[in-house]
Amino acid sequence: MFRKRHPPAGARPGTLVINGDASKPTVRVMEYTAEAVQEHELADVQELRGLLARDSLSWIDVEGLGDEQVLRSIADIFELHPLALEDVVNVPQRPKVENYEKHLLYITRMAILDDAYAIHAQQISIYLGPNFVLTFQEDHQDVLDPVRTRLRQGKGPIRKSGPDYLAYAIIDAVIDAYYPILESYGEILESLEDEIVEQPRRSILRRIHQMKRELLSVRRAIWPQREAINSLIRDENPLISDAVRVYLRDCYDHCIQIIDVVETYRELASGLMDVYLSSLGNRTNDVMKVLTIMASIFIPLTFMAGVYGMNFEHMPELRTRYGYPVLMAAMIAVAVGMVMFFRRKGWLGEERSSTGDDVPS
Amino acid sequence: MFRKRHPPAGARPGTLVINGDASKPTVRVMEYTAEAVQEHELADVQELRGLLARDSLSWIDVEGLGDEQVLRSIADIFELHPLALEDVVNVPQRPKVENYEKHLLYITRMAILDDAYAIHAQQISIYLGPNFVLTFQEDHQDVLDPVRTRLRQGKGPIRKSGPDYLAYAIIDAVIDAYYPILESYGEILESLEDEIVEQPRRSILRRIHQMKRELLSVRRAIWPQREAINSLIRDENPLISDAVRVYLRDCYDHCIQIIDVVETYRELASGLMDVYLSSLGNRTNDVMKVLTIMASIFIPLTFMAGVYGMNFEHMPELRTRYGYPVLMAAMIAVAVGMVMFFRRKGWLGEERSSTGDDVPS
Amino acid sequence: MFRKRHPPAGARPGTLVINGDASKPTVRVMEYTAEAVQEHELADVQELRGLLARDSLSWIDVEGLGDEQVLRSIADIFELHPLALEDVVNVPQRPKVENYEKHLLYITRMAILDDAYAIHAQQISIYLGPNFVLTFQEDHQDVLDPVRTRLRQGKGPIRKSGPDYLAYAIIDAVIDAYYPILESYGEILESLEDEIVEQPRRSILRRIHQMKRELLSVRRAIWPQREAINSLIRDENPLISDAVRVYLRDCYDHCIQIIDVVETYRELASGLMDVYLSSLGNRTNDVMKVLTIMASIFIPLTFMAGVYGMNFEHMPELRTRYGYPVLMAAMIAVAVGMVMFFRRKGWLGEERSSTGDDVPS
Amino acid sequence: MFRKRHPPAGARPGTLVINGDASKPTVRVMEYTAEAVQEHELADVQELRGLLARDSLSWIDVEGLGDEQVLRSIADIFELHPLALEDVVNVPQRPKVENYEKHLLYITRMAILDDAYAIHAQQISIYLGPNFVLTFQEDHQDVLDPVRTRLRQGKGPIRKSGPDYLAYAIIDAVIDAYYPILESYGEILESLEDEIVEQPRRSILRRIHQMKRELLSVRRAIWPQREAINSLIRDENPLISDAVRVYLRDCYDHCIQIIDVVETYRELASGLMDVYLSSLGNRTNDVMKVLTIMASIFIPLTFMAGVYGMNFEHMPELRTRYGYPVLMAAMIAVAVGMVMFFRRKGWLGEERSSTGDDVPS
Amino acid sequence: MFRKRHPPAGARPGTLVINGDASKPTVRVMEYTAEAVQEHELADVQELRGLLARDSLSWIDVEGLGDEQVLRSIADIFELHPLALEDVVNVPQRPKVENYEKHLLYITRMAILDDAYAIHAQQISIYLGPNFVLTFQEDHQDVLDPVRTRLRQGKGPIRKSGPDYLAYAIIDAVIDAYYPILESYGEILESLEDEIVEQPRRSILRRIHQMKRELLSVRRAIWPQREAINSLIRDENPLISDAVRVYLRDCYDHCIQIIDVVETYRELASGLMDVYLSSLGNRTNDVMKVLTIMASIFIPLTFMAGVYGMNFEHMPELRTRYGYPVLMAAMIAVAVGMVMFFRRKGWLGEERSSTGDDVPS
Repeated sequence: MFRKRHPPAGARPGTLVINGDASKPTVRVMEYTAEAVQEHELADVQELRGLLARDSLSWIDVEGLGDEQVLRSIADIFELHPLALEDVVNVPQRPKVENYEKHLLYITRMAILDDAYAIHAQQISIYLGPNFVLTFQEDHQDVLDPVRTRLRQGKGPIRKSGPDYLAYAIIDAVIDAYYPILESYGEILESLEDEIVEQPRRSILRRIHQMKRELLSVRRAIWPQREAINSLIRDENPLISDAVRVYLRDCYDHCIQIIDVVETYRELASGLMDVYLSSLGNRTNDVMKVLTIMASIFIPLTFMAGVYGMNFEHMPELRTRYGYPVLMAAMIAVAVGMVMFFRRKGWLGEERSSTGDDVPS
Repeated sequence: MFRKRHPPAGARPGTLVINGDASKPTVRVMEYTAEAVQEHELADVQELRGLLARDSLSWIDVEGLGDEQVLRSIADIFELHPLALEDVVNVPQRPKVENYEKHLLYITRMAILDDAYAIHAQQISIYLGPNFVLTFQEDHQDVLDPVRTRLRQGKGPIRKSGPDYLAYAIIDAVIDAYYPILESYGEILESLEDEIVEQPRRSILRRIHQMKRELLSVRRAIWPQREAINSLIRDENPLISDAVRVYLRDCYDHCIQIIDVVETYRELASGLMDVYLSSLGNRTNDVMKVLTIMASIFIPLTFMAGVYGMNFEHMPELRTRYGYPVLMAAMIAVAVGMVMFFRRKGWLGEERSSTGDDVPS
Repeated sequence: MFRKRHPPAGARPGTLVINGDASKPTVRVMEYTAEAVQEHELADVQELRGLLARDSLSWIDVEGLGDEQVLRSIADIFELHPLALEDVVNVPQRPKVENYEKHLLYITRMAILDDAYAIHAQQISIYLGPNFVLTFQEDHQDVLDPVRTRLRQGKGPIRKSGPDYLAYAIIDAVIDAYYPILESYGEILESLEDEIVEQPRRSILRRIHQMKRELLSVRRAIWPQREAINSLIRDENPLISDAVRVYLRDCYDHCIQIIDVVETYRELASGLMDVYLSSLGNRTNDVMKVLTIMASIFIPLTFMAGVYGMNFEHMPELRTRYGYPVLMAAMIAVAVGMVMFFRRKGWLGEERSSTGDDVPS
Repeated sequence: MFRKRHPPAGARPGTLVINGDASKPTVRVMEYTAEAVQEHELADVQELRGLLARDSLSWIDVEGLGDEQVLRSIADIFELHPLALEDVVNVPQRPKVENYEKHLLYITRMAILDDAYAIHAQQISIYLGPNFVLTFQEDHQDVLDPVRTRLRQGKGPIRKSGPDYLAYAIIDAVIDAYYPILESYGEILESLEDEIVEQPRRSILRRIHQMKRELLSVRRAIWPQREAINSLIRDENPLISDAVRVYLRDCYDHCIQIIDVVETYRELASGLMDVYLSSLGNRTNDVMKVLTIMASIFIPLTFMAGVYGMNFEHMPELRTRYGYPVLMAAMIAVAVGMVMFFRRKGWLGEERSSTGDDVPS
Repeated sequence: MFRKRHPPAGARPGTLVINGDASKPTVRVMEYTAEAVQEHELADVQELRGLLARDSLSWIDVEGLGDEQVLRSIADIFELHPLALEDVVNVPQRPKVENYEKHLLYITRMAILDDAYAIHAQQISIYLGPNFVLTFQEDHQDVLDPVRTRLRQGKGPIRKSGPDYLAYAIIDAVIDAYYPILESYGEILESLEDEIVEQPRRSILRRIHQMKRELLSVRRAIWPQREAINSLIRDENPLISDAVRVYLRDCYDHCIQIIDVVETYRELASGLMDVYLSSLGNRTNDVMKVLTIMASIFIPLTFMAGVYGMNFEHMPELRTRYGYPVLMAAMIAVAVGMVMFFRRKGWLGEERSSTGDDVPS
């Protein structure tokens, strides 16, 4: 469910809503040139001031949004617009790009799958300047380790390019992290489908509904990223070089592909609900048939037995020698007749015949 | 349900429809400069004439639309176009912006939640001039108290900026007031979902339908605000400064986020209806199974008892020493056979097995 | 259902399809200046020729399309393009604007509600010239009386403005006439909703379907009017003055508001169908429970009675002193056990418990 | 179902797929001037060469696509582009316009209703040149006889105008032929609706599905024609005069109206399926009620009779004088009690009460 | 289900994901001039270097993506951009066009139907240069044999035109291969429909769901190809000649037609699910009716028999001469009454009456 850290309605813009439970911010700096990387965790955010003046590039990663003082200091050093800081702190914001005079703010949402296969969408805010990338995350858990590894190893263009390339690498890592989630969901959908056909348990209903809800979450997270990346590619902003725009086009394609798959999965999940409802109808039908067959065979027989259980004095059949065996024979005939009637209706044999061919010949 | 105070069809434009039950208008004025605020309630609307000539800025808040005379006087003083006055009085109008030569009319809808969690959408009309903001509300209840507090306290830019900033603050307060409503609805949806799975009562049907109806109301109220804010941002109007346009972009983002959440909730609510229908089918199934099991076990036994209740003279079994116990044993065998048949079908044990795993392993 | 008076397929354009049952045309003229109004009904359409040469403005209202001769004469006098006359006569056309060199044809559809709350959509064709408005209606019943009253009373700008203002007044009257219809439909939807929850009768099914059908009719009538009014506002046509364009924008807003409400009502009506289906499922469930409870209690008892109705000679229980009361006690125990089983399942008490709380606490 | 005469995948463009069963082509020529018409059927297509050089206009109508030799000869004479010929022969193509240097190809689909009210959509390809119209049809059955009649009679502008007017007349005839089909479908929908409410037979299910399928066919045939006509109106092509463009706008309006009606009918048909499902639920409910009432009344009575059929020696009631009548009275009391219980539940009287009011008071 | 060979999230762009199970690449070259064709399979990819310098045109077809070394060598020779190579190898990509300075990459998806009528969508990447076409496929199975045959036979313009024509021929072959698939699906839908009406087996549910899933696959494969072809036609790229653009327009039309058919089939499949659900309801109804009829006839009779099986001493009827035959007659009367009641309700005769007329008279 949707829960936004929003200021009290009508509060002045720029009000930060700091959640007492939120993680305290830790600030990790990776300072790099084409030749080398230096990594350290900052004790005092004021150390960041020196960073901006140097020639090297830096990635400052702020994890945790639980201390207004620290966040305001950072905003002060990097000249964040008050509204930009509000967007960073009052999560979740809709993914978007904000162009400021000398900086660019890109807000995106990364998806982390928990053990119950539920999506936890966390906001990553990427603030791009001429020689730094500043990222804010809600928590310490993220999908950016591969980017850190590439920075450390220095293979590929990542250390040789500008901060826009690093920003691209982060955006790309966020989007790529949706692929394994979709694969998990694809497998869950497949297993749900198999289960519905083979042995439709009751819990499946809730699991389909959960799947639909999670897919809605993914959709809500990924859809606006498409627009945001597109405006990164399209907008004239000197911070993004043309070379990086080409890479962003690739990101954009992946984003659209993820949207495609999500929409397909949502339709499949809706289809599964229909299949479940139908199979429920089939089972009710089965139950009804058993009842009807049992009742239709034995109720007439019980009636026949009832007739000859009557105590009339003048019931000549009761005295005949073969009354009893004749009646028993009649009862068997009735029972066999009913069974044949049901067999002709196909109520007795269907279960066997339905397991066969799944495609038409 | 929709009820509009519309003039008789074909009436001339500008006709005001004054509802006898509507609140009498009260006029509250907040006159402010960067240094100070003066607040008072007006006894006579003619006092407003002086206000326009002064250097200070004013917020004139008209609450209640129940007196045509007063409204026409105000319109006269502030030079409202006849159609503008009609839009203000004949509520509800669709949220929109109307640009006049020297003024701007912004019509929006604020949502107030009543105790039964139903939306009451009330129109707020914001009429912006060079040194005043004139607002009209249907009633005395509103979501603007935080704006008043900010004006009184004078923190932030609100008293230092022009009337366009005040108008923005009001629009922002209106939109922000949707967030707590959506959170309430999110919680209701969650509790409905839990209830459907655990103990689906009949009243849930109506509550889901109510939830869908309320969400439709929110949607109808918020959707056109998106367009309206967008045209505020986009239109060339000297009354709105560029600085305020930046803030309005923020409003616009919030508006889109609310729309996103509303659409998601509507899909979830539809999904819940499906889940309810399915769980209804499951319960019918359960009832049927109990009936079928009871009937299938006892009807054959009753028949057997009926056979030996017959009064034929020649029924040799009746005379044998062990006829009775043998029959009883046969009856037990039949009953056990039926129970085993139903256990094999999974009709006896399913309820237990279905409460387990909710996610596939 | 859709029935169009269309010429035989492939007939040459301009072919008029005169329905024998259609009302004979009557021609009513209102000739007006700022000072006075003259009203009369014409006996001979040739009198219209004089009208065009005079300085005064006229509204010529042709009611009934049942006489080709009369219609062709009028077309001749006012220089209607053959296709324009075809559009006027072969009703219904889709609402639209056609710009001719010196004239403008606006086709719209007015909605009249009959006693059974069904929509009768009738075409009004408004042909606007430099000093006249010529309207064609299918029938004598219309929604334009308020416009006539305004012309007679001469209040407001209607007599002082050009014919474009009169055309606007007619268009506005047509659109405003949709509001009371929507309110009726809103009330019907509300009463249907109450009924479904309290006492879902069978006839409700048909009434929901009828409501959906009527809403589709309204939608088909109102949707193209939106485009038509928009093109009136947007197109460069000297016949429409800028002052009237402002009023038409108001019309346009009303049109969109009506569309909004219609769409909302359609969703509510669809939701009601779901609620009805669910309440049907609930009722089937109730019926099943009664049957199951009755059968489950009495079938085992009947079996027990059957056992002791058997005629075996060696049934020791039959001879014991307290066999009968012991058996009766056992039967009561079985019955009480079944009742307790059903109470535990919640099948006996639910109806009472379900009428309570409608909103979550 | 969709069946296209497509060449083997990957065949070179221009490959014609001649179906052995297709009708052999007959070539009918109508050569006309403002004064006269000459009609004849050609034995040898080479005669067509003379036609192009003459001053008169011609309509060459090729019916049947079953002879590649003939078709290639015609293509050769009229200079059809290989792709144009492919479009003409490999039916069905999507309706569209293709502009060639000196010619124009317009592909459309005419709908013919068979006796079972199923749509047979046939392609008509209209190839327009400076002094001829060349049409290709799949078969001899068409909807163009009214156009031929108009040509023969010479009334209206058809013989006095250029070939573009003839092409328009053909397009118009094709579109107008959809109107009677929609009216038939409207009547079928109405009769289905009445039937569902009064006496819902099982066959209705299939008929609703068929109706939906036919409406999908109409939609697929008419939707692209809208685009095609629009591009005829909009594209700069000297073959189409401005006068004819005005007429085509009329065609375009009809096309949109047909689309409107088709969409409305599709929604009504979907609504009918819901109504049918609900009425099915109602009937199941009725059946259940009969069973429940019968069983609930007689099962307790049978039990009571069973008790006094037991053979206990010590059952004092059996010996009392009034045991039998007292028991019979008790049985009647139980039966009456059950009947009253069901009457209170409304299960006995509903069928009568549901036939009354169809609109709320 | 969706499975993409994607690099670990956050890997640097250009990372290739080589699946160990993927086919090893084989490289087949067709070198051709207007006069002749040479075909051979390459042992060493370095031989390709010579090819680029020659005057002849070549089609280099790489089948299988299982060897990074080979793929990188080819990319090196043909100057593929690293992102282009990634698009080629990390299948599936969304169909798209990428314009590079001197080359053009077109990614498409061909559909191959397996024996179970399931779609296997395989990516074909077409890399077009000034004198070559380089294609990459996932596997050795493809739909391009007709193109190879046309090259070998040299009929038509294929050998006389540039490499853009060859690229078009390949794109066209890929799209045309969807037609027979759609025809198979059309036939399956028809057979499903017949089956549902005649003998709705349980397996049909799964087959409808499978059909819907396959149609979703086709849709996901074909929809982006429409955009891709459109941008081929529209984009200014010197590699594509105007003559070939005309042919591509034809491709585009086919693409849209396939989308049309897919959408129609999806709606039909959804409709079938509804029909199945309804027919399920009908069958439950039938089962219920049999039960109700049997129970309603015999339960009252059993009760009557039970009454006269009671052992009261004072039951005068038991002693009368004609008690037994009179009771039997009463029983027959009751049974006949019940049968007549059910016949009047239409429960006995419906099955016969429902097989008749399928269209309204």
